[in-house]
Amino acid sequence: MKLASYKDGSRDGQLVVVSRDLRTAHYASGIAHRLQQALDDWDFYAPQLQDLYDALNADRARHSFDFNPAQCMAPLPRAYQWLSGAAYMSHLALLRQVAEGDLPAALKTDPLLHQGAGDAFIGPCDDIVVASEAMGIDFSAELAAITGDVKQDTSPEDALDAVRLLMLANPVSLRQLEAAEQGKGAGLVQSRPVTAFSPVAITPDELGEAWRGGKVHLALQTSWNGRKVGMCDAGPEMGFHFGQLIAHAAKTRHLRAGTVLGSGTVSNRGAEKHGRMDWPKGYGCIAEKRSMEALQNSKAKTGFMQFGDTVRMEMKGKDGHSLFGAIDQNVAPLYPVQAEAEPAQESAA
Amino acid sequence: MKLASYKDGSRDGQLVVVSRDLRTAHYASGIAHRLQQALDDWDFYAPQLQDLYDALNADRARHSFDFNPAQCMAPLPRAYQWLSGAAYMSHLALLRQVAEGDLPAALKTDPLLHQGAGDAFIGPCDDIVVASEAMGIDFSAELAAITGDVKQDTSPEDALDAVRLLMLANPVSLRQLEAAEQGKGAGLVQSRPVTAFSPVAITPDELGEAWRGGKVHLALQTSWNGRKVGMCDAGPEMGFHFGQLIAHAAKTRHLRAGTVLGSGTVSNRGAEKHGRMDWPKGYGCIAEKRSMEALQNSKAKTGFMQFGDTVRMEMKGKDGHSLFGAIDQNVAPLYPVQAEAEPAQESAA
Repeated sequence: MKLASYKDGSRDGQLVVVSRDLRTAHYASGIAHRLQQALDDWDFYAPQLQDLYDALNADRARHSFDFNPAQCMAPLPRAYQWLSGAAYMSHLALLRQVAEGDLPAALKTDPLLHQGAGDAFIGPCDDIVVASEAMGIDFSAELAAITGDVKQDTSPEDALDAVRLLMLANPVSLRQLEAAEQGKGAGLVQSRPVTAFSPVAITPDELGEAWRGGKVHLALQTSWNGRKVGMCDAGPEMGFHFGQLIAHAAKTRHLRAGTVLGSGTVSNRGAEKHGRMDWPKGYGCIAEKRSMEALQNSKAKTGFMQFGDTVRMEMKGKDGHSLFGAIDQNVAPLYPVQAEAEPAQESAA
Repeated sequence: MKLASYKDGSRDGQLVVVSRDLRTAHYASGIAHRLQQALDDWDFYAPQLQDLYDALNADRARHSFDFNPAQCMAPLPRAYQWLSGAAYMSHLALLRQVAEGDLPAALKTDPLLHQGAGDAFIGPCDDIVVASEAMGIDFSAELAAITGDVKQDTSPEDALDAVRLLMLANPVSLRQLEAAEQGKGAGLVQSRPVTAFSPVAITPDELGEAWRGGKVHLALQTSWNGRKVGMCDAGPEMGFHFGQLIAHAAKTRHLRAGTVLGSGTVSNRGAEKHGRMDWPKGYGCIAEKRSMEALQNSKAKTGFMQFGDTVRMEMKGKDGHSLFGAIDQNVAPLYPVQAEAEPAQESAA
C-alpha cells in the first residue's frame, strides 16, 4: 500500500492512503490520524489501512479525492531516529576521488552510518531554505526505509523483516561546511540541514520482484534544473542491503518503530572508455559530478546549487508508472536577496 | 515546575507533575497525556501544568500519590532530535590527554556537537543492557536541555529563551568501539547505544539564581559502585552555554520542539600540586579517570564497568535537596552470563 501525510497545520499532518496509480487518496482518520501511530502498532493498523487501500484501488472508497503531492509533508513528518547510510561504494570512491579498489577495506565490510536530525523533515515540494549560496548547496538522490521495532544485536536477515515502508529521500548537504565539521571529528550537524522525502511511502510488496535481497532493483532518476543528470540503478551496486544497514545500527541497542534509514546517494560505477573514465549513468549529487570532473580533467567545474534552482527525483516501475511520486523542490533564500546597491545620488542642494 | 513520565506500558508513558520536594506526584492526564504533547503547544499547556504543580506543592491536589523514581521513563521517553555536546574544555583536554591550552583553537570557538538517537531513551533506574563487558562500558554525567521551536540562524541569546526544561543525562559510551567508528569519520553510532535521564525534568526557574548565563551553577555528584567519584561544578567551566549550543545546532535549520541537547561530560580542571597533576573534583566518566592516570603515571589502570556495576548521578540545590532526583542504574548483560564450564564427567559405563 501507499501512504502519505497531508498538510493540515499540525506537526504530524493527516495520514492518507493513496491509490497505486497516485491519482486518488482517502483520509485514514477512521483508522489512524498519524503515520507514527500506525507504526507504533503496525500489526493492528496495517490490515485496516490495506483494506482502505484495496477499496481505493477498486474505486470503492466512499470519500476519495484527487491526490496532490504539493499538499504532502514527508510521509513521516518527524522521526525519532534518522540514520543516514552510505551504502554505494561508487559514491564513497567518487567523493574520495579514488578508484573503488583503493577504498579502505573496512568500508566494504562495515557499513558507514551517521545519525541525523529527524525533528523537521520536509515535504516533497517544500523549498530548500538556505541562508547563503556560498554554503555549497547539494542534493542527494537516495532510498530510505522506515522500520518497525528491531531487537538489539539482531541478524541482517531478521532486520530485513522490520522494513515497513520505503521512500525516496533527498538529504541536503552544505558541502562548504563539511570540512570544518569533519575536522572536529564529531559527525555532521550544520552541513546536513534538512531531508525531503517522496510524496508517498510504500510497502515493499508494491515493488514486486524489484524488491529482492533487501535492495530496490530499479533506476532512480534525478533532474537538476530540468536536465536529467542521473539514472542510477539502485540494486546491484548497493554494497550493503537494508537488512545489513539496520542490523549494523541495532548492534548495541534496539531500534524503535519509526526509525528512518537512508541508503546514501545511489551511485553506479564508471568505466574506462577510449582511455578516459566515464560514468554513463550520471550522478546522484553534485559532489559526485565535481569528483568525476576532477578525475577526468583534474579540475571540478560544476558549481553547487543556486537560489531558484530545482531538483527532481523519481523512480518508475517496469510498467513506467511512478512508484513514490516525485520529489520536486526549489532552492530558496532564508533572507530576502538584496539587489546590488546603486550608488546614492547626491542631492542638488 | 517538575515533570516526569510514568511507565504505563505505552511508548510515551503518562505525564505526571511532581512536587518540588519530589515526594508526591499527580497525573497530568486532565491537561496532557504525554510530554511531547505539552512541548508541541507549550504556551497553552505550561500554565495549566504550573497550576497543578502549585496545587501539589500546597498539598491541595486532589489525587496525588507518592512519587517513585523507579516508575519513571525518561521525562521525554523518545525525542525527535538528540544532540550531544562536549561543552567542557577540561573533558576535551583529558580525553585527548593534552593540556587545555594545547586543544585546537577551533574547539574553543566552535562547539562540538553530534547527533544521537532519540528513539529509545531509558529511565533513571533502567538497566544499561550490553552484550559484552569487552565493549568498554562507560557512563557520562551530564546536563541536558529540552527546547521549544528554534528559528534557523538564531542568536545564542534568543536560543536561550527556547530552553523549556532541564534534566540530568547519562549517555552511555562503549569506549572500545569508538576507535573503529572514528576511523570511518561518520560520527558515533554503535559506540553511543543508549542515554538515561533523571526522574524529572524541571523548568529553569526551579534553579533560582543557580541558572544564569545559560549554565547551571551547581555540582553534579557521580558515584560508581557506591563510591563518590565526581563532584564537578557544572557552571563556570562550561565553555559554551546552552544558548550557544542551541544556536550552533540551529545555524542552518530550524529545530522543532522537543529537541534534547546534552552538555557533554561535566568536567573540572586539574591543578598542579607538589609537582603532580591532581583533579580534586574527580571525574564524570571513566575515560577521564583513565586519562588522569595516564597523565599522572603514564598508564591507565582503572577498567571500564562490569556487569552488576552501579552508577548514580544527582544534583542538589543550595538547600541540599535533590533537584532532578537521581539516575541510579545497573549494568546488565544482554545474554545470560554462562558460568565457567566445568569439565564434563565421563559417565562410568
